[in-house]
Amino acid sequence: MTTQEALKIYREKIAQMNALHHAMGVMHYDGATTAPAESAEGRGKTLAYLSGCAYEIETGKELNEAAQYLKEHRDELNAQDAREIEVFLRESEFTASIPQEEYVAYTELLNKADAVWHKAKLDSDFPAFAPIIKDIFATNVRFARYYKPDQAPYDTQLSLYERGLNMEKTDAFFNALKERIVPLLKKVMAKPQVDDSFIWGKTYPIEAQRKFSDYLMDVITIDRNRCSIGETEHPFTTMFNKKDVRVTTHYHEETPVYSMYSVIHEGGHALYELHSGDELEGTLLRGGVSMSVHESQSRFMENYIGRSRAFIELIFPKMQELFPAQLKGVTAEQMYLAVNKAEPSLIRTEADELTYALHVLVRYEIEKGLFDGSIAVEDLPKIWNAKYKEYLGIDVPDDRRGVLQDSHWSGGNVGYFPSYALGSAYGAQMLAKMKQTVDVDAAVRSGDLRPITGWLEEHIWKYGKLYDPMDLLERAVGEPFDPKYFTDYLEEKFTAIYGL
Amino acid sequence: MTTQEALKIYREKIAQMNALHHAMGVMHYDGATTAPAESAEGRGKTLAYLSGCAYEIETGKELNEAAQYLKEHRDELNAQDAREIEVFLRESEFTASIPQEEYVAYTELLNKADAVWHKAKLDSDFPAFAPIIKDIFATNVRFARYYKPDQAPYDTQLSLYERGLNMEKTDAFFNALKERIVPLLKKVMAKPQVDDSFIWGKTYPIEAQRKFSDYLMDVITIDRNRCSIGETEHPFTTMFNKKDVRVTTHYHEETPVYSMYSVIHEGGHALYELHSGDELEGTLLRGGVSMSVHESQSRFMENYIGRSRAFIELIFPKMQELFPAQLKGVTAEQMYLAVNKAEPSLIRTEADELTYALHVLVRYEIEKGLFDGSIAVEDLPKIWNAKYKEYLGIDVPDDRRGVLQDSHWSGGNVGYFPSYALGSAYGAQMLAKMKQTVDVDAAVRSGDLRPITGWLEEHIWKYGKLYDPMDLLERAVGEPFDPKYFTDYLEEKFTAIYGL
Repeated sequence: MTTQEALKIYREKIAQMNALHHAMGVMHYDGATTAPAESAEGRGKTLAYLSGCAYEIETGKELNEAAQYLKEHRDELNAQDAREIEVFLRESEFTASIPQEEYVAYTELLNKADAVWHKAKLDSDFPAFAPIIKDIFATNVRFARYYKPDQAPYDTQLSLYERGLNMEKTDAFFNALKERIVPLLKKVMAKPQVDDSFIWGKTYPIEAQRKFSDYLMDVITIDRNRCSIGETEHPFTTMFNKKDVRVTTHYHEETPVYSMYSVIHEGGHALYELHSGDELEGTLLRGGVSMSVHESQSRFMENYIGRSRAFIELIFPKMQELFPAQLKGVTAEQMYLAVNKAEPSLIRTEADELTYALHVLVRYEIEKGLFDGSIAVEDLPKIWNAKYKEYLGIDVPDDRRGVLQDSHWSGGNVGYFPSYALGSAYGAQMLAKMKQTVDVDAAVRSGDLRPITGWLEEHIWKYGKLYDPMDLLERAVGEPFDPKYFTDYLEEKFTAIYGL
Repeated sequence: MTTQEALKIYREKIAQMNALHHAMGVMHYDGATTAPAESAEGRGKTLAYLSGCAYEIETGKELNEAAQYLKEHRDELNAQDAREIEVFLRESEFTASIPQEEYVAYTELLNKADAVWHKAKLDSDFPAFAPIIKDIFATNVRFARYYKPDQAPYDTQLSLYERGLNMEKTDAFFNALKERIVPLLKKVMAKPQVDDSFIWGKTYPIEAQRKFSDYLMDVITIDRNRCSIGETEHPFTTMFNKKDVRVTTHYHEETPVYSMYSVIHEGGHALYELHSGDELEGTLLRGGVSMSVHESQSRFMENYIGRSRAFIELIFPKMQELFPAQLKGVTAEQMYLAVNKAEPSLIRTEADELTYALHVLVRYEIEKGLFDGSIAVEDLPKIWNAKYKEYLGIDVPDDRRGVLQDSHWSGGNVGYFPSYALGSAYGAQMLAKMKQTVDVDAAVRSGDLRPITGWLEEHIWKYGKLYDPMDLLERAVGEPFDPKYFTDYLEEKFTAIYGL
């Protein structure tokens, strides 16, 4: 075998894997957006077959022999190819550690889990969901042990989402947040609350909200020829290649704000994918490097841009045009305060910037306990509710608005939650660095966000998975990760809003 | 090998093929409904890979050896299994006659063709479409020759859509229609025209039309948990299994009638698929047996039910509820006449029952000429327009409303068109037979269509592909196919409407 021959085999097999993942991705998207209710069973069978095919290619002799050969001849490869082989071998090692039947069975379990969770949430019926969640966590613990038998399974799980992460680092991160956020929130709660009644008290027709979504996508520079908006119960983003990214939102007639921030958040994910380097297309290196870095981009758009005074001033005339009766007599400043109202609440996806990390903390501690066996699935509602009382000071009225609210666990995204808080903190550090060279407020006010998106493309998006997450962040901001940028940002912003 | 072993291999491989076709079908559906504009290229690559996988399984040694073994031991099989093996071997013989590279290249060509056709139609630019259509027809001629070297390629092509069909039979069929329809149309045109201005002159909001679609689907007994409605430029139906059927429609604000009959027509296709026998699920025998029989069901619902006086009387109160201002002062009888207005027109999908077959005849004659070389692709617009003048007496103003109007050729559905006319005629013969035991009008008037759908399920739907199309029809109606039921129906109906 020559290096050229090995590369040819490698590329061909990766293209086949990509094709299978593309097809599975479209089927998932279709399942969440438009497929009829009873289609899940048939989809599950097909996904199981396709995932088995992908498993066979990824762990197969042909591809792995070619990749091993290339690893041994890495001095003959350019830097990008060498990096890709390294990433491939790392991922295939994980996949190959799982027996194929278990890998396929897990695909089927997740397909089933989605429907069970939807129904359980609707009925606020945790016991109906408990066996599934038990199975999903047990499978993840087992897979983590197959891969790294000598390591605590949750450390393995965290590192699968964010290479280099473990419980020690995550504990330290959340402790740093708690230390600043909890006293800050107390001070906020002692002040008079801002008025946001006008964004909740009226009817905001969905047709007008759809137009608003199109406008927002334009403002944040999304190329709609490469990115569509669908409608799902829970907003998400999925991507198949640089010319095919899908975001979804959910319209609530009683407020324009829920969908507005879903669109901006998912739009942030989409931008990252749409601007992955051209030279990475078709390789394993295309697209976001980790979920934390992905969330840093989505929450950057949602909060650091979308909840800024400059952004609200920019878009408020359009809001008044689309919702003239509903927003009569409201000012941009009132809207700015309303979308930044901070107070403990039940639902993570509707939480404000200040309390958001505490919602994530609850989930992190529960996952840790489920992994080490200190929490039993049966006790989840009780423990969930106790933690909400402890960290947010509120009572959870039912499991629908409690432990059943998120789609992550039923989707197999176990170990994902810390990414949201880490991403927020990464984003704050990027914002501080960006401000050294870009007048962020002026760009937003001008309506031309390209100085901002240009910085992100140049320092984050274009690199795909060329660097590990922490390396990428350090290269972008010029120093190690430090959560103080995030807590400083929160303190400054909410001190001003609430006059602390 | 034992029969049980062979059956096990056979079933496993068919399940794999089904999974691949399921994934490809969802990708096509997604491409037509919600995928962003630039996604076609990536989708094309993935479809090419998946179709190659399906080709390899269908023509592969493992499956074909098992099927051959089963054919040789067919006395050990039950009737359904024996039939399935026969159908499989027939289909795989066709597929295997095409070299794999050409098979995959054709998938890619069709994926590309769709975008080229859309743009060419928009721009009314036939020359932009000509090279693609030339390539598609040449490929179909070549494939037909690979399969049956000693037979006229268009005979082969027709028989792929409708087993047993050839040019001789199709010519005879169209001659029988022309003989009765052309003089009938002349008599109609000599009479004062019915008034349908109220279904065209106003604005019918799309949100209300969507509600109307849901209502219509209910009326024709479609289980919405197994069948969704999407929105596409050109309505179609696609199906993955008995619990997952998709119909699409297109809403035009200027009339409720276009989408209304799209929904009922596609709903007729959907019913056929939704009621395929349970015991056929997962086998090659599930679903519609041929496109003609499929069209017999869709056009049965659309015309024999949907354009009947009883049906209009049934649904008219709902129309008035949804469109009160637009239909103020209009009676059900006026609506009945309006939706049955017969006159030569440009667009096949909007044609009335009487002239519809003439639109199909134009396409049939053109396909025949393209296959035998007597028509060159470059001359298509000229020939198209001449035939519209000859059969329908009208001038075609541009190719957008002429030769570029249909999606069939760019979709590779070459040889499909005769199915529409044959289907209409099959349906009329079924209606005559059904009326011997079912009071069709009374059932429609009652709003409970189950006596009608029950007959169709019992005589057509449940059988899937257990019988060849003509056998199925003969079993259902108790005599050979005869187009006179169709022409009698037309004569009776339009004589009454126009007072001939």
